[in-house]
Amino acid sequence: MAYELFYWPNIQGRGEYVRLALEDAGEAYVDVAREKGGMKRMTALLDDAKLAQPPFAPPFLRAGRRLIAQTANILLFLGERHGLAPRDEAGRCFTHQLQLTIADLVVEIHDSHHPIASGLYYEDQESEAKRRAEDLRRNRLPKFLGYFERVLASNPRKGGWLTGARATYADLSLFQIVTGLRYAFPTASKRLARKHPRVIELHDRVAARPRIAAYLASPRRIAFNQEGIFRHYPELDG
Amino acid sequence: MAYELFYWPNIQGRGEYVRLALEDAGEAYVDVAREKGGMKRMTALLDDAKLAQPPFAPPFLRAGRRLIAQTANILLFLGERHGLAPRDEAGRCFTHQLQLTIADLVVEIHDSHHPIASGLYYEDQESEAKRRAEDLRRNRLPKFLGYFERVLASNPRKGGWLTGARATYADLSLFQIVTGLRYAFPTASKRLARKHPRVIELHDRVAARPRIAAYLASPRRIAFNQEGIFRHYPELDG
Repeated sequence: MAYELFYWPNIQGRGEYVRLALEDAGEAYVDVAREKGGMKRMTALLDDAKLAQPPFAPPFLRAGRRLIAQTANILLFLGERHGLAPRDEAGRCFTHQLQLTIADLVVEIHDSHHPIASGLYYEDQESEAKRRAEDLRRNRLPKFLGYFERVLASNPRKGGWLTGARATYADLSLFQIVTGLRYAFPTASKRLARKHPRVIELHDRVAARPRIAAYLASPRRIAFNQEGIFRHYPELDG
Repeated sequence: MAYELFYWPNIQGRGEYVRLALEDAGEAYVDVAREKGGMKRMTALLDDAKLAQPPFAPPFLRAGRRLIAQTANILLFLGERHGLAPRDEAGRCFTHQLQLTIADLVVEIHDSHHPIASGLYYEDQESEAKRRAEDLRRNRLPKFLGYFERVLASNPRKGGWLTGARATYADLSLFQIVTGLRYAFPTASKRLARKHPRVIELHDRVAARPRIAAYLASPRRIAFNQEGIFRHYPELDG
């Protein structure tokens, strides 16, 4: 039976990390909320008081009788099942650790345009966003990207992946970070790219994977826009 | 061999979720950075370019030859080893899902006093903090605590734990959230308690566990202070 992914229909958002893993694994899935009546189904599950193990928020994944939420948790599940994580326990643990670090970065990127409240418009927190985005560009992005550059440099297997000899879901997620930052912060991204060549090479290596390349060229890939995690406000790009 | 926990020595912070699990499990551990020379050891590990699987930030745990980072990842590891997670895979997955939701809440609580930048003083972002804390009190805390109340209510095993019939690391972590919110937001916490009786009962149940009670009364428990995640600024409490 195909997986069912429940996520907001109009943005890449956190659902995209799951989509990339499913696409790279070649697994069939239904992007439920993009189908007719799908939003209703998603909302009904979020509100279902009878669920013993309810999700807090999208994305969540239906896998047979299981309903699994939290992006990194879904990837932990899929990675082991579909060869997108190392086979040994220590390798799987480190891959998950990398994914949780990426998850922390995703929050910081989101909050750079919404530092006060997700429920308020950008225009109602623009001056605060300018201050926060400056800190993101100057301090936080160099710290995170420098970390991933270091991890790539210290992987004893020389395939150019974050851990082990093969691509994991963490590599797919880091690709998404790079491509998202290029959309949201084109100027800052150019400057950052010079100091993090291995991260950029990883991005290119993921983009060239046949299933990922096919996905990116398909209508299944939602375009970046001003509703997602990565938004392009020129005034936040320095 | 005793575990070694690496975390900042003067705050509960994210290390506290790991401390609570180790204490409840009755496992021996060294809180490295609180020992003589320990901060140097922690910094050396963070800077060690030879580590193939480096941590991004504290906390991290030395378990034999393994070095494991990211709070929720450490708890996933410890929970399975020491009976602080369900035995079945679906139960372990849901426990981790709950922990990741708690981790999201921890970020939001931290950012309520530091909405612009961790590297700036509170005083340099106080007006922004007031706006963000108001959103936390009015919207985010009710949403998160309402979710945990719902999870407690819908657990088919009636022991009063978040999942399954026994305490997990997620229960210990939710205790820490409640006690931290009481310190940081005493007024808001009183109001919130009325709507979330099961969450409060869970807090009391965890606090009464013999090993947790002994830990809380010991010098190993660092007192709340104005350097940690939970800080008491009366102007943020509404």
